[in-house]
Amino acid sequence: MSHDAPLSPLAPKSAPEIPPLEGVRFGVGAAGVRYAGRTDVMLALLDARTTVAGVFTKSKCPSAPVDWCRDKLKGGKARALLVNSGNANAFTGKTGAQAVKFSAKLAAAATGAPERQIFLASTGVIGEPLDAHKFDGVLEKLAQEARPDGWLDAARAILTTDTYPKLSTRRATIAGVDVTISGFAKGAGMIAPDMATMLAFVFTDAAIGAEALQAMLESGVKGSFNAITVDGDTSTSDTLLLFATGAAKQRGAPKIEKASDKRLVEFKRALDAVLLDLAHQVVRDGEGARKFVEVTVTGADSARAAKRIAFSIANSPLVKTAIAGEDANWGRIVMAVGKAGENADRDRLAIWFGGVRVAHKGLRDPDYDEAEVSQIMKRDDIVINVDLGLGKGAATVWTCDLTKDYVAINGDYRS
Amino acid sequence: MSHDAPLSPLAPKSAPEIPPLEGVRFGVGAAGVRYAGRTDVMLALLDARTTVAGVFTKSKCPSAPVDWCRDKLKGGKARALLVNSGNANAFTGKTGAQAVKFSAKLAAAATGAPERQIFLASTGVIGEPLDAHKFDGVLEKLAQEARPDGWLDAARAILTTDTYPKLSTRRATIAGVDVTISGFAKGAGMIAPDMATMLAFVFTDAAIGAEALQAMLESGVKGSFNAITVDGDTSTSDTLLLFATGAAKQRGAPKIEKASDKRLVEFKRALDAVLLDLAHQVVRDGEGARKFVEVTVTGADSARAAKRIAFSIANSPLVKTAIAGEDANWGRIVMAVGKAGENADRDRLAIWFGGVRVAHKGLRDPDYDEAEVSQIMKRDDIVINVDLGLGKGAATVWTCDLTKDYVAINGDYRS
Repeated sequence: MSHDAPLSPLAPKSAPEIPPLEGVRFGVGAAGVRYAGRTDVMLALLDARTTVAGVFTKSKCPSAPVDWCRDKLKGGKARALLVNSGNANAFTGKTGAQAVKFSAKLAAAATGAPERQIFLASTGVIGEPLDAHKFDGVLEKLAQEARPDGWLDAARAILTTDTYPKLSTRRATIAGVDVTISGFAKGAGMIAPDMATMLAFVFTDAAIGAEALQAMLESGVKGSFNAITVDGDTSTSDTLLLFATGAAKQRGAPKIEKASDKRLVEFKRALDAVLLDLAHQVVRDGEGARKFVEVTVTGADSARAAKRIAFSIANSPLVKTAIAGEDANWGRIVMAVGKAGENADRDRLAIWFGGVRVAHKGLRDPDYDEAEVSQIMKRDDIVINVDLGLGKGAATVWTCDLTKDYVAINGDYRS
Repeated sequence: MSHDAPLSPLAPKSAPEIPPLEGVRFGVGAAGVRYAGRTDVMLALLDARTTVAGVFTKSKCPSAPVDWCRDKLKGGKARALLVNSGNANAFTGKTGAQAVKFSAKLAAAATGAPERQIFLASTGVIGEPLDAHKFDGVLEKLAQEARPDGWLDAARAILTTDTYPKLSTRRATIAGVDVTISGFAKGAGMIAPDMATMLAFVFTDAAIGAEALQAMLESGVKGSFNAITVDGDTSTSDTLLLFATGAAKQRGAPKIEKASDKRLVEFKRALDAVLLDLAHQVVRDGEGARKFVEVTVTGADSARAAKRIAFSIANSPLVKTAIAGEDANWGRIVMAVGKAGENADRDRLAIWFGGVRVAHKGLRDPDYDEAEVSQIMKRDDIVINVDLGLGKGAATVWTCDLTKDYVAINGDYRS
């Protein structure tokens, strides 16, 4: 958490209170990786029966911790999660892989868990070796002091350029037994590898097999973490892990092995809600963001085409600067639709800002009230709808505007 | 040409003087399409034997003039080119198609040429109907007064947000006979449809069949107009036309029908040079640009992979803001390589700024001199080299930096 960056104007009014979740405890500390005067290391202790699922950056140049997690995920079991901020341990070559291995060794010693059940994530500067010796002696203390009510502290310890901690929680029932899904995330660009990365960790006390967990996570990210963008840039470190402690079993919850199991319907909905809430919070903390923008494309040839067009709009610098300028510039939407490479017929296109149709059938809508749209564009949250009039494909993605502050934050003007 | 925008700091010292080229004359006038106190319509008259080739925007929502030109190109012959600035006649539905037809009719009447040999381009605001009646009475005068030395005036009449006219000329010999290739372009964003679009018109007195001309143009744009980006956005109106008047035949130049004809070797080189020069001038006038950036990727699996990676770097907001900040941020280059989706191995990557290697084999180069690189980053022209160490694929693209001025120009902050 940068001490000089002002709170995003799009930040939630307050962080939600997260109740303890059976089977997970958090310890945080200051290992001095990079920052002074703040926590920068977080250790989550997980009960022995915990299963795990994960999704990662699609970057062809992933960080060393991403390589580690991808490999350990094959076992499907997790006993601890160690996360540091201040250094991403990315583009650090063999030194990076060694630092990961040494970190896991320290975490295993501190927790008594096998190395292969330790999961790791790092966020912060890249290209600088991570000195894992800084964790030596710190992790034992974290393990000893870990508390079930440490959610907010854990969420804070992993922040970098974020201006607020991001937490979310939902409840569901599985076969009549209450379970909880809670998590936290960090991320502010999408995502500067210089001092960012999207990390998210979600926990549940439900008892769910690793395969089912993985299937639900992969399904859930499609409409949440894989449907957001700040600047179209992709970190080398993006990591989203989902842990199921299974503690609800003691209260009578069944252990479920298949994602298609009907008893998971409500759980899936709650999981999707947590993922979407956290993903939205990342966008709302987008670097320099002053507007939160929802883009929905309907009438496309397919859902895939709709998503590609929606991202073409959401990533267009010209669309994003227009929104920053509170300008309902539908011409730039047409441009972004046209460049997406998917089927589109300009004479069937219809475009809405905040529910007001500004263009249809290849022309400016003669009836639209400019004063009304002008008021809509002044809001913090902007909704754009585009209908292609071709098929049934639909998709929604979220982004933020592109402001001078984005350039200032990332341009680091030296002169 | 915007009257209040200051000249781009990357502008050439002066516009080159373009000598008359046999077979083409230019007339310019003020039709009052949108601007006051400047020319906004340009008519080029072409000799009867003129052949034509063209390439256009890949947008799925092209403007009405693009539709017209694509259709008329099938004939391979051109007698006149009519271009207006101030209105792009894009997203104007049937009205737009009618305006194009009426413009062609007026141009045909003014020049005596058949409508099917009239080529048209429009640039300026989109979504507003173009009133082609404004050309009525104006085109006759332009046809009467057209002059072979009107190049600079022609180049100026088609500008919109450009801060300088863009012209280029080269000479070549075909079978021992001197021929000339000259052209001009406009474009400043890549390219805001609101008040921009990339247009380029190139003329030669060589005698070359339309098919051969088309093949050479398609080959030539690969390394020039299709290798530049300002913001990754694509206009609905991008048009590049190449006209060969054939007038050099009177001086003994042969008429050539095949692009593979060995007598065209020198001509092709000169054509490529004109296209590259004009393309670079568009980037140097990029909205808000303060740095001209060349990105060369080598060692990729294929040329196609290299170009995709190079564009991933050149379009990355994080790379572009870092360059604006004069920051040799190679971590963001790694990020952009990783997100391109092409094969890459972080442990083989090498990166240079201005010829100084800053990273290799998955690590920061321990020998690089930060003070030297810091000086390099202060230059107007920045050269970035990336070697992937995988194969023989190579590509070069050009872009500019992303500054607060880009956001200001396109954000049109109202509050």
